[in-house]
Amino acid sequence: MTTTSEATFQHLLASRAKLMRPGGGPGGGQKPQYSLSGGYPDPGSFPFDELVQATARMMQEEGAEALNYGEAQGYLPLRELICRKYQHFEGLEIGPENVLIANGSSHALSLAFSAFVDVGDAIICEAPTFSGTLNTIRRHGADVHTVPVDGDGIVTSAVREQLAALRVEGRSCKLIYTLPNFHNPAGPTATLQRRQELIALAHEFETLILEDDAYGELRFEGEPLPSLYALDDRGVVIRSGTVSKILGAGMRIGWLVAPAPLVPYLQAFNFGGGVAPFTSRIATYYLRDHIIEHVAQLVEIYRRKRDAMIEGLNEVLEGTDAEISQPQGGFFVWIKLPTAADPAKVAQLAREAGVAFVPGANFFPHDGGERHIRLAYSYETEEKCFEGAKAIAWAIRGAMG
Amino acid sequence: MTTTSEATFQHLLASRAKLMRPGGGPGGGQKPQYSLSGGYPDPGSFPFDELVQATARMMQEEGAEALNYGEAQGYLPLRELICRKYQHFEGLEIGPENVLIANGSSHALSLAFSAFVDVGDAIICEAPTFSGTLNTIRRHGADVHTVPVDGDGIVTSAVREQLAALRVEGRSCKLIYTLPNFHNPAGPTATLQRRQELIALAHEFETLILEDDAYGELRFEGEPLPSLYALDDRGVVIRSGTVSKILGAGMRIGWLVAPAPLVPYLQAFNFGGGVAPFTSRIATYYLRDHIIEHVAQLVEIYRRKRDAMIEGLNEVLEGTDAEISQPQGGFFVWIKLPTAADPAKVAQLAREAGVAFVPGANFFPHDGGERHIRLAYSYETEEKCFEGAKAIAWAIRGAMG
Repeated sequence: MTTTSEATFQHLLASRAKLMRPGGGPGGGQKPQYSLSGGYPDPGSFPFDELVQATARMMQEEGAEALNYGEAQGYLPLRELICRKYQHFEGLEIGPENVLIANGSSHALSLAFSAFVDVGDAIICEAPTFSGTLNTIRRHGADVHTVPVDGDGIVTSAVREQLAALRVEGRSCKLIYTLPNFHNPAGPTATLQRRQELIALAHEFETLILEDDAYGELRFEGEPLPSLYALDDRGVVIRSGTVSKILGAGMRIGWLVAPAPLVPYLQAFNFGGGVAPFTSRIATYYLRDHIIEHVAQLVEIYRRKRDAMIEGLNEVLEGTDAEISQPQGGFFVWIKLPTAADPAKVAQLAREAGVAFVPGANFFPHDGGERHIRLAYSYETEEKCFEGAKAIAWAIRGAMG
Repeated sequence: MTTTSEATFQHLLASRAKLMRPGGGPGGGQKPQYSLSGGYPDPGSFPFDELVQATARMMQEEGAEALNYGEAQGYLPLRELICRKYQHFEGLEIGPENVLIANGSSHALSLAFSAFVDVGDAIICEAPTFSGTLNTIRRHGADVHTVPVDGDGIVTSAVREQLAALRVEGRSCKLIYTLPNFHNPAGPTATLQRRQELIALAHEFETLILEDDAYGELRFEGEPLPSLYALDDRGVVIRSGTVSKILGAGMRIGWLVAPAPLVPYLQAFNFGGGVAPFTSRIATYYLRDHIIEHVAQLVEIYRRKRDAMIEGLNEVLEGTDAEISQPQGGFFVWIKLPTAADPAKVAQLAREAGVAFVPGANFFPHDGGERHIRLAYSYETEEKCFEGAKAIAWAIRGAMG
């Protein structure tokens, strides 16, 4: 029944699908001794019992509504809860009409690419940028123009150059994708000045900004800066958020915050039946009672893990010219390998030591990243973050000269 | 913050989004006395307590895995359960590698349109066809060629004509979208001969078939016929399914069954994080113990509701030339209004009587359907199906000459 030859359907593929290089599939295989690759939340922090209780209470109170089709824009009390969350953590005032629920943050972001990007359309993103979104960008066939990230965040002078160059060619930039907080993977948080400059550029060049903020609540130190969405007064910013990092990625609940006129265009690519009516209710019943205390606990947990990882790295790499990011929040450390280290040798020794990490090249749309690696301190315990960091650091040492 | 003018972003929209006519938004408003419009499952049949128990048991047994990111193709035990379901209900043998989980059946179907349809590409569908998929088809900008449905299902001679006409123009038909069982809205189940003819046409003209089967298990009488997927021996059929009608639409779990070589192309449009790891586990824990008995109960419930609705309609419309479908399963009755009835008057009188239904035109890609209406017997109780049917039938009577 599955005798399809490639030739049978290749000519039927849509232009976006033709860009695919299929194959690969899920990695699978053995679990590494130190899982420092994906941005998996801390499994020990999941509130199992409370979620079961929330489910029972929700089913009793909501009845059949929880098991039937839902609202296209998402469960209203969840959208209201998200508004209160922004109010509490950032002092940002939005209404539920600005919130559009999706099946996780990656799905939410994909709605913006679906609404605005045709194959061949120009967009701007950082290099490095989040590898998951890079997949989405490629799937939409975007023509990707990159700008660097430095210690102050996205380099806005480079954004201006890219926008100006596109204008000379008579082309529009469809959107600028950026990660202003605890940049994934590079680490920096964009300064207020960079944020203001980016907004001004979007206004001047009539483009949109897609602001990815999956980790904003998980700030270990320093004061939160206003989001791009908050700074914009002309409705050109679309922002994503998620419960994946503060409740559980398995719920698959993310969202976009967008100026109301854009919402129907984004929602149009969310096909059928309303989004997550069941899990949205569970998340709402749990989070409305627990979000503040739970986030506070998570900040403690991840701060300690970050510190453990950086301590482990420093212990071994002190005296080398390795560059190790110091993120103020989020899940990741970004390392520039010492000049003398051979990246292929690092990969081989890390594999032998049982350390899984993500090679830097995965975060670059075109070339680059060969001398970087990303480590996640989110998934493993504090102890294993320390031990795993030392293990990869010894791999790096071992690959030097 | 939401001062975006349409002009600010209209020029940035993707070609598919430019086809949208935004506005409208959710209907909302008062709940009608008789909700006979959407295909909402019976709220009284939801297994509340069992689902809460399944959630608790699942959380205990699966631990953190349930709350973390999932497999891109979907939770393996759910895919295996779906294989066993097909084996039990139809004798169809497939493997979990043929199953791709999605967020409901509409989302699953949208993956096929994303993978195969560019703006302007030709597809064939029935007229009438399922209105939800019609939205998806329009969102993808397909050039829709229609074929009629008669008492034996899709009219394959018309399919041949459309395929031949496209070939003369040098164009491919990207896919044929069809609902072979208890056609929604028209009612008929495609005969074995029609199914075989359709497969042969897909082979001859090198196109794909997208087989929508959301209701297959809910057969009240007659023997199930082999699916198009089962009849095809060249891997050109993609089939959708869902738990929405047999467990709860709020779970948002649907799937595609596809020849393995097509799966990566379909999955590519399922962005990020794995599909529904949490609800997939709940559904699996409940269904693996209960699916056979629960489906048997639902068949009884919906059969009685169908009978009640048809009895109510016949009681009032006997002696008119109204045509009332007699579906062997599913959720819907399709009515051709009596020649003498004025459709606008029917709508007005039905509104006054508190009956919500779907006008026939909603199911037609182009013109047509003005003299049809669709009623759902799925949501209301048996008694209200009978009373609501009489109420709409009196509205029809009242609109006659």
